Amino acid sequence: MTIEPYHFEFMAEAIREAEMSIAEGGLPIGAVLTRDKKIIARGHNRRVQEKNVILHGEMSCMRNAGLTSFHDTVMYTTLSPCSMCAGAIGLFKLSLLVIGESVTFPGSKDILSQFGIPYIDLADQRSIDLMKSWRSVPANERLWQGDIGN
Amino acid sequence: MTIEPYHFEFMAEAIREAEMSIAEGGLPIGAVLTRDKKIIARGHNRRVQEKNVILHGEMSCMRNAGLTSFHDTVMYTTLSPCSMCAGAIGLFKLSLLVIGESVTFPGSKDILSQFGIPYIDLADQRSIDLMKSWRSVPANERLWQGDIGN
Repeated sequence: MTIEPYHFEFMAEAIREAEMSIAEGGLPIGAVLTRDKKIIARGHNRRVQEKNVILHGEMSCMRNAGLTSFHDTVMYTTLSPCSMCAGAIGLFKLSLLVIGESVTFPGSKDILSQFGIPYIDLADQRSIDLMKSWRSVPANERLWQGDIGN
Repeated sequence: MTIEPYHFEFMAEAIREAEMSIAEGGLPIGAVLTRDKKIIARGHNRRVQEKNVILHGEMSCMRNAGLTSFHDTVMYTTLSPCSMCAGAIGLFKLSLLVIGESVTFPGSKDILSQFGIPYIDLADQRSIDLMKSWRSVPANERLWQGDIGN
């Protein structure tokens, strides 16, 4: 899978979503969904904002997409997907997942592979710095641990 | 894992949720979450009702539980969980999942096992009949196929 320059442009939009979440007091994970290289839905983690455990960045983005087929869509997410998000991406059979980083959280790439979902890991330093900087605050680290079910 | 009579009582409550969804024009899959053998959250599939693809019965129930730890909870779901729901149950580390049936849909028990989540499959005829009867209507079968990403 070739890493094209436009992948970094859409990842910048996912990072913008993550930054919006920080401004709202939420977790810094964002996602955008594209079809034909155009954004059709955006989202970010809404755990804190809506007191809702299922609204990880990817889930929030899929919710915002409405009732559509995802087969011809590409998702950009700032962080490697957890088992819930990877399971959703596998169920809905997205054509590609572009991951910002999996350094701070490995996620469940194995579930993506089980469902034959292609993915690219950009190992994007902006995404890594976003999580590391935010998690360096102890109260944020506690939010993060809750977000991944610990 | 022993099947206790109370498991069937809580499953009856999950089935009640599924029936409520049918009455709303939605998909007949329901769930309840218990702690210390008391129901702390209920939910049913809300795909049609909220035009929201992520609201499977189990997800809706976890949403309704709010910001809580799920480690000491037991979920009852009328239907074997898909990869999204199994991934969520694995992430949030529920203590047990009681499944109504996996005859009409096998679901992703393998993901539960990957995460070490114990489960019981009741092979409950009421749950089986509910799905079979509802899916015998062609328009409902189309809703179902969309619900599992086809």
